[in-house]
Amino acid sequence: MKTQDFTIALDAMGGDRGPEIVIPGAALAVQRHPNMKIIFFGDEARIAPLLDQHPKLKSVASIRHSEIAIAMDDKPSQALRRGRNKSGMWHSIEAVHKGEAAAVVSAGNTGALMAMSRFILRTLPGIERPAIAAIWPTILGESVVLDVGATVGADARQLIEFAIMGEAMASCLFKIDEPRVGLLNIGVEEVKGNEEVREAGRLLRELSLPLNYIGFVEGDDIGKGTADVVVTEGFTGNVALKTAEGTAKMITTFLRSAITSSLLSKIGAFLAQGAFGALKDRMDPRKHNGGVFLGLNGVVVKSHGGTDAFGFATAINVAVDMVNNGLIVKIAADVEAVNSILAQHSKAAE
Amino acid sequence: MKTQDFTIALDAMGGDRGPEIVIPGAALAVQRHPNMKIIFFGDEARIAPLLDQHPKLKSVASIRHSEIAIAMDDKPSQALRRGRNKSGMWHSIEAVHKGEAAAVVSAGNTGALMAMSRFILRTLPGIERPAIAAIWPTILGESVVLDVGATVGADARQLIEFAIMGEAMASCLFKIDEPRVGLLNIGVEEVKGNEEVREAGRLLRELSLPLNYIGFVEGDDIGKGTADVVVTEGFTGNVALKTAEGTAKMITTFLRSAITSSLLSKIGAFLAQGAFGALKDRMDPRKHNGGVFLGLNGVVVKSHGGTDAFGFATAINVAVDMVNNGLIVKIAADVEAVNSILAQHSKAAE
Repeated sequence: MKTQDFTIALDAMGGDRGPEIVIPGAALAVQRHPNMKIIFFGDEARIAPLLDQHPKLKSVASIRHSEIAIAMDDKPSQALRRGRNKSGMWHSIEAVHKGEAAAVVSAGNTGALMAMSRFILRTLPGIERPAIAAIWPTILGESVVLDVGATVGADARQLIEFAIMGEAMASCLFKIDEPRVGLLNIGVEEVKGNEEVREAGRLLRELSLPLNYIGFVEGDDIGKGTADVVVTEGFTGNVALKTAEGTAKMITTFLRSAITSSLLSKIGAFLAQGAFGALKDRMDPRKHNGGVFLGLNGVVVKSHGGTDAFGFATAINVAVDMVNNGLIVKIAADVEAVNSILAQHSKAAE
Repeated sequence: MKTQDFTIALDAMGGDRGPEIVIPGAALAVQRHPNMKIIFFGDEARIAPLLDQHPKLKSVASIRHSEIAIAMDDKPSQALRRGRNKSGMWHSIEAVHKGEAAAVVSAGNTGALMAMSRFILRTLPGIERPAIAAIWPTILGESVVLDVGATVGADARQLIEFAIMGEAMASCLFKIDEPRVGLLNIGVEEVKGNEEVREAGRLLRELSLPLNYIGFVEGDDIGKGTADVVVTEGFTGNVALKTAEGTAKMITTFLRSAITSSLLSKIGAFLAQGAFGALKDRMDPRKHNGGVFLGLNGVVVKSHGGTDAFGFATAINVAVDMVNNGLIVKIAADVEAVNSILAQHSKAAE
């Protein structure tokens, strides 16, 4: 399957710097995936000259011109009104819907991208609400954490859907057979947490779902890598993700100010620069770039808006992994299987 | 006021090591607060020999013997049943209720301590639900974050109560006049977040409460120190707190393994040990130890169960700050003022 040709649609106008990042990012990704084709969606006058600088990429790429670009601060409703049928973002998602591309990657406005993706691609049968899954660095490697902001206040049933979707994504991304799935809570005992989490936990424990459910996990378990997939609703997941970013930023600020505080420390840091390089490398947000929209009828990956070409290439790689490992088919099959178990369960409970 | 004598009740049996930490911790705190008296509650046979090792502390301390000690894994209901009128934890809280002590500090079981505190002390008039406030290190210093686990799923009204209580605590702890109060959300626009947070934000914006409300803040603002007080409901707050702990742990693990990976790095780290010491010092959890139970008719401070004598002394210092700066009186007055504004507002809205 991996040797087949496939096409990725790129929203060239998204992110803080648009084509200046997207085109060199695509050039990096194409080196890694020689059988990949690219369609750029956006302002041809800006895309074409940049593409001329990357002959190898140019040979596998085409451009679809769009008049309208969605701004990073457009509200989703505005973006839908203004960008429908006209914007690069819209057309790049539509390319997935029409089967012209296997996935779309955008560094644009998250709310607008989700609104358009739901509108064009629709959710998969049996999925009530989509989720955004983040790739989270841990002591043991990486984990998938969802939802980080698409569905605020998910109920028990939706949390189970997130578990299924996150499990499918983790198996595509990490190439493991039975990713460990944990439900984020404020304690590991059955009585802890809010009603939705307790009920989701009960269903996951009691039903024999085709899922390696390991129980409740707490906030500190995310960084420890206790689970490959950490499931929560969108409000808590978004706060957790940003809190972790803020904590990392605080610690690196402390470290920098401590090291530059004396000459001896500076010399020491110079000698240990290999170690600091290794630390920086492991914490590099560009290496974990790519929020995957799950539950839709197509692969949509959101790149961080402020990333560089290397980071954008990572997001493209995530999209390629999802395509090559059959994310959508896997989610659709898993959801069907789980829904039939849940249906039998509710029948039996009547 | 600070020169007056005051008494602190200590639950000597709480925490992973009980009196072995609590007594030397109290000895450190007494050095800093010479006008403080201490009552230890717990097993006299274990407390007395340890107290003999600290003559200065012994001269201002007394012991109240209790047969029963609450275990760290007792459920709150079990603890209440087993420890009522019999345990050191119960008696230490009761000492505050009776006015024998100005505050109680315990490193014991959080759930049991909250259950007993609510039972004995009751909530302040006008306060629906208590909160636990954590002291959070930030780039700029420290902030107060609440609730970190007492009240799961707080509504808009309760979030406003948390804002008032957190503001009172921050002014007692940081000695600042108008602490900046932020409401934790997943974006800064008015439409973001769940219903409770949006409604609390609307009330805080529209009513002229005696509160320096700065609007919505996001997870990464906590570590940045954007607000002196960060308000959220107990589920999200607990996840955020533990996620930050997990992230800090992950980064220090990465840093340690990077530094020990080569001889040159080790030499560099040796030369820069002053810098690493400074970093360790700023991140030291013992310096930010002390979760304050807010909304009760008395000062209750929870120490981390795994801390050492230095950390336990920090928790005592937090209790002393709350007592000396009149936390309870301030909260009671603020709540009354805010409730009268809220009542006028609902009347006007009818």
